[in-house]
Amino acid sequence: MILNLLLTGNELMTGDTVDSNSAMIARYMATHGWNVRKKLTVGDDLTDLIDAMHLLARDCDVLLINGGLGPTVDDLTAQALANACGVALAENAIAMQHLEQWCGRIGIAINAANRKQAILPAGCEIVANPVGSAVGFSMQLGQCLVICTPGVPRELDAMLEQEIMPTLQRNFPNSGASVQRFTLFGVGESGLQQKISDAIPDWPADVELGFRVSFPQLELKLSTANAAARDSVKKIWPRIETIIGDCLLGEGATTLPQLLVELLRERGKKITVAESCTGGLIAASLTQIPGASAVFDAGFVTYSNAMKQALLQVDENTLRTDGAVSESVVHEMALGALKHSQADYAIAVSGVAGPDGGTEEKPVGTVWIAWGTADHLKTKRLHVRFKRIDFQKYVTWAGLDLIRRDLLGITGEPNYFGQRK
Amino acid sequence: MILNLLLTGNELMTGDTVDSNSAMIARYMATHGWNVRKKLTVGDDLTDLIDAMHLLARDCDVLLINGGLGPTVDDLTAQALANACGVALAENAIAMQHLEQWCGRIGIAINAANRKQAILPAGCEIVANPVGSAVGFSMQLGQCLVICTPGVPRELDAMLEQEIMPTLQRNFPNSGASVQRFTLFGVGESGLQQKISDAIPDWPADVELGFRVSFPQLELKLSTANAAARDSVKKIWPRIETIIGDCLLGEGATTLPQLLVELLRERGKKITVAESCTGGLIAASLTQIPGASAVFDAGFVTYSNAMKQALLQVDENTLRTDGAVSESVVHEMALGALKHSQADYAIAVSGVAGPDGGTEEKPVGTVWIAWGTADHLKTKRLHVRFKRIDFQKYVTWAGLDLIRRDLLGITGEPNYFGQRK
Repeated sequence: MILNLLLTGNELMTGDTVDSNSAMIARYMATHGWNVRKKLTVGDDLTDLIDAMHLLARDCDVLLINGGLGPTVDDLTAQALANACGVALAENAIAMQHLEQWCGRIGIAINAANRKQAILPAGCEIVANPVGSAVGFSMQLGQCLVICTPGVPRELDAMLEQEIMPTLQRNFPNSGASVQRFTLFGVGESGLQQKISDAIPDWPADVELGFRVSFPQLELKLSTANAAARDSVKKIWPRIETIIGDCLLGEGATTLPQLLVELLRERGKKITVAESCTGGLIAASLTQIPGASAVFDAGFVTYSNAMKQALLQVDENTLRTDGAVSESVVHEMALGALKHSQADYAIAVSGVAGPDGGTEEKPVGTVWIAWGTADHLKTKRLHVRFKRIDFQKYVTWAGLDLIRRDLLGITGEPNYFGQRK
Repeated sequence: MILNLLLTGNELMTGDTVDSNSAMIARYMATHGWNVRKKLTVGDDLTDLIDAMHLLARDCDVLLINGGLGPTVDDLTAQALANACGVALAENAIAMQHLEQWCGRIGIAINAANRKQAILPAGCEIVANPVGSAVGFSMQLGQCLVICTPGVPRELDAMLEQEIMPTLQRNFPNSGASVQRFTLFGVGESGLQQKISDAIPDWPADVELGFRVSFPQLELKLSTANAAARDSVKKIWPRIETIIGDCLLGEGATTLPQLLVELLRERGKKITVAESCTGGLIAASLTQIPGASAVFDAGFVTYSNAMKQALLQVDENTLRTDGAVSESVVHEMALGALKHSQADYAIAVSGVAGPDGGTEEKPVGTVWIAWGTADHLKTKRLHVRFKRIDFQKYVTWAGLDLIRRDLLGITGEPNYFGQRK
């Protein structure tokens, strides 16, 4: 089944609203192996809407239209579809009944504005709206089934789940297509693409390789168009796995903070953080995860030198001799945090986030990390070439990843160690 | 100037990525009175891309293409534009030089995958990328100027600001339209819309009022179609200002952490935080701002009761009697943080972020905040009706806002105090 989308609304053209409805629609369709081919967005303009309907209906089986069903004058979808199909607008009895019931239930009187929501293209089929006032409707336009849906996300959601997906499943075969996703950290898109091209010159034609950057993580995606191609994925996977190695966080939509909270919880271990350049972001990324309290009791944000001394007992001489961004300082920070929090593991970071504060010896992007347990604490200097906010995020992820590696007994060095010149 | 957008990327078709780039582009264009007419999104398919280029270039002056400039095989924009324009692909000297410099700076070797980013349509103009490896490029397709930009948001942002907008301004007349934006915190979209409708029934016809939610902040937008209408904005502004009052953070793209760091720096004051339910997010939001070290020395993330006692000397009896989410506990947390950090101001928060941990007396969403100076510390119980991650963000913003209000001598109560039932 080939699907096109048409989204309408001035708010989508001005940048005032970020369209998340089309992602919702695509995810529903993907569960049955159907992909969206084209997605066109236009403002609330009758001519543009009619043109778009003709254009999109030409090369798909189903055209899903979202938006423009509301009660106001700039909601033009019904009018446009009537024009495109060459039929009149007429009051629809089922839609009117729905509207009366809906208004009755929430205790408001029907007025001319919401009555408009029952004036639909003559001969259309009604698509019930389980949660809102505007019903959806569908109609053939040439060979294409056009389905009109409301722009309110929760109404669209309910209509997709309860009405549209069951109808489509009855009328169109499942394609057998599937997608597998893997989450990685510590490898870049271009580097990984190159490694895979080099190592697997005989890449199977029926498996599509894709990437998605969700900074600082990377998603690797293997798409297959039919059931037979899934065997190709099974055959190729061990070779891919060798390449991505210990950068693999897991299958699906894992995030590193989530994974680490789970790992620590499984092992009954606790973690603490001593943060300078990340300024609280490591703690915040862990405590975003529900249930983080099982593995995290306390974190120390020691931004100034005086606070590194006062809260973590970093030695004044160490700070004076080696500077705040140094191996000895992150080592002492980690030990101080472990002592005060009684946690099992610590991450300590100190670096130059920029834009200012770099020196020749320690340019912007320099960061020292200490990680591990009190009796097995490791340290490393990294150079992270991202600007302030991304720098903080990358350093946070590197810290979490180093603990993940320790917990999993991974002995090889991560790629990001190599970024230092 | 008529502008169309073409977005490309399978991740936009599968629902894996919600497209926020087109909103960013629209907002840049709106500042010069240019609107996006059509926005088409297609996957990484060469034929679909070429068709889309021809289709969209037909009825606009500028076609901005976003995405598909990366190093991987599914990045097809250069190939598609070359085909659409009937030219060959060739290694571009300027792009190659940029790539070499970029790889040199981050210390990686150029490989075939990223070299691909310099293979561009013959005869194209380069659009510099100030922050990433892939340059943009532009080329005439019939009467239409086609500009290709990278999909990475921060690269697109920098390229729009530093390269594309100045070029378009030189080549296309400003329509005279303008947009003014104001940043608010502590007021919702529908509530504010209602207040304005009630208070200004004679709203000027030539000024368009709009809102954009940038959670937890709200942006109010005043659009005018021509120079004359700007006088209407000037006349109406004092009445709007009365309505939004102390929720106004500033004009343009201010954020509350940014504003607060500036305010504290101007006054030579320092701030500390004692965080339970926000888990480091208040510290992280402040330290994201360049120059935060002038106003922030230390923050305490005390997630467990034991750590509230050990690090902030919260009394064991207080915790036992009143519970961790209580007025007395946040009061003691704030005093402890002030004492250890020697900061002037503190924010302390303790609440039930959910999804679990709520009780009848203290349901999920309950939060106690303490804020102010050691000798003038205030406390308040709020009820924040957002899910975990948004809850943490809202509580962070509320804490920062309360200090802003103190610093500015605002005596009225913020709206969010009223949210508690």
